[in-house]
Amino acid sequence: MSAVDPRLAKLSLNQRTTERWSVREAVDGCVRAGIPAIGLWREPVAEIGVAAAAKLVADAGLRVSSLCRGGFLTADGEAGRAALEDNRRAVDEAAGLGTDCLVMVVGGLPPGSRDLIGARQRVADALAELAPYAGERGVRLALEPLHPMYCADRAVLSTLGQALDLAERFPVEQVGVVVDTFHIWWDPDVWRQIERAGDRIASFQVCDFLTPLPADVLLGRGMMGDGHIDFPPFRRAVEQAGYTGDTEVEIFNAEVWATDPDEVLATMKDRYLHLVLAD
Amino acid sequence: MSAVDPRLAKLSLNQRTTERWSVREAVDGCVRAGIPAIGLWREPVAEIGVAAAAKLVADAGLRVSSLCRGGFLTADGEAGRAALEDNRRAVDEAAGLGTDCLVMVVGGLPPGSRDLIGARQRVADALAELAPYAGERGVRLALEPLHPMYCADRAVLSTLGQALDLAERFPVEQVGVVVDTFHIWWDPDVWRQIERAGDRIASFQVCDFLTPLPADVLLGRGMMGDGHIDFPPFRRAVEQAGYTGDTEVEIFNAEVWATDPDEVLATMKDRYLHLVLAD
Repeated sequence: MSAVDPRLAKLSLNQRTTERWSVREAVDGCVRAGIPAIGLWREPVAEIGVAAAAKLVADAGLRVSSLCRGGFLTADGEAGRAALEDNRRAVDEAAGLGTDCLVMVVGGLPPGSRDLIGARQRVADALAELAPYAGERGVRLALEPLHPMYCADRAVLSTLGQALDLAERFPVEQVGVVVDTFHIWWDPDVWRQIERAGDRIASFQVCDFLTPLPADVLLGRGMMGDGHIDFPPFRRAVEQAGYTGDTEVEIFNAEVWATDPDEVLATMKDRYLHLVLAD
Repeated sequence: MSAVDPRLAKLSLNQRTTERWSVREAVDGCVRAGIPAIGLWREPVAEIGVAAAAKLVADAGLRVSSLCRGGFLTADGEAGRAALEDNRRAVDEAAGLGTDCLVMVVGGLPPGSRDLIGARQRVADALAELAPYAGERGVRLALEPLHPMYCADRAVLSTLGQALDLAERFPVEQVGVVVDTFHIWWDPDVWRQIERAGDRIASFQVCDFLTPLPADVLLGRGMMGDGHIDFPPFRRAVEQAGYTGDTEVEIFNAEVWATDPDEVLATMKDRYLHLVLAD
């Protein structure tokens, strides 16, 4: 790709921000916009295959900042075993795409279950199986604490502190954490936990928290500046913790998805420069 | 009131659960249902005045388990001073109603502000003014941590641990905390914090967490058994912490509000007996 504005050297487009784009379109869009990295999703990658996706990215001179996502590890029995198998495939895909970061959304309560402690234990058990497999392939499982409003149905991992308690059972090259502003901005303990995270930080994701939340709360993620989050303290905190990786912009939002993706990238660059990099 | 089933001796109807009922109707409804306590709200109390409400409750032989609510302390300047004045009135009303528990919803970010740390500091400053005033009148300010999804617009107090950090700056008879299952059920640290809370627990409220959340997330509170929360561990934890007060059922839910309130009370008693008191 052509020369990148040095201020954008660590900016990454998470592919879900431009949901209608295929891998090829997203790669081309990043090149046009001068964005040097991309966070890929398994489903669009599967449409063309890992090798083809890896080649597209490499030929364009982009980095893959992460693969989304593994996880959903809270079921037991056959469903649990199937989840482990699927996660091994996700690790292989991450390795094939040349990224060392597999984002893990660990899953909510199994249908009908109210056993939150049990679900959290099953995540720990599954990680014990998956972590060495990932490490041997040069991939780190990046545990993503999700906002507590998703505890029942998406992720029983709800705070950065809880994610670190779990990650620290494993070697640092096998299990890390995701710092995503949307999910943790409210946490009164977040600054201490980011400092504690140190080299466990495998990914830094930004997007804003909107109110009122939309009818589908999964889509409450907004463009930086459209919500309530003050971003520079988070950027500085991850930097001070030693993180030198990319900043991924990951937005699930019906209005953003309805906008021309090139326009979304232009806005994203502008907001990143003025609201994330700001002092 | 007539003899109460001893198993219901600590059950309280929070008035918002039967939103359409006036104070008189709610008091009469509790008497019919054999529910010995009621949590009142300021707005319906204001319709008849504190003295008349206190007399209705006393004549019916009920207890007032709490008054909802004070708070909204995050503004500064003139709005902040007006909030303090309003909170002093709320304390007076609680005293007039014969309850020692004023539930505090501390408020979200002021409009346009992204200064979460500053908002939290203003809550602390306001409490320092209000706590002695409350204590002198035999009223305890019961800090309610709200679910983090309300951090931006309702309450910058998001966890029980955070509420206790704040409450512990004041004498125990002046500032306590609310343990509300809906708001804190997801918290991996909740058991340790309930134990820590001890005699700071000023109120125990129960209702369930529903998914999918409704379009207005304020109304995601469900009847016990309709959602994801396992109640007995919470009841046992507050008991083990030394709490001997009432268990208030507080449900904001469009479907519950559309149901005949006597029917709501019947369901509430049944669910309380089988899902909250269960071993």
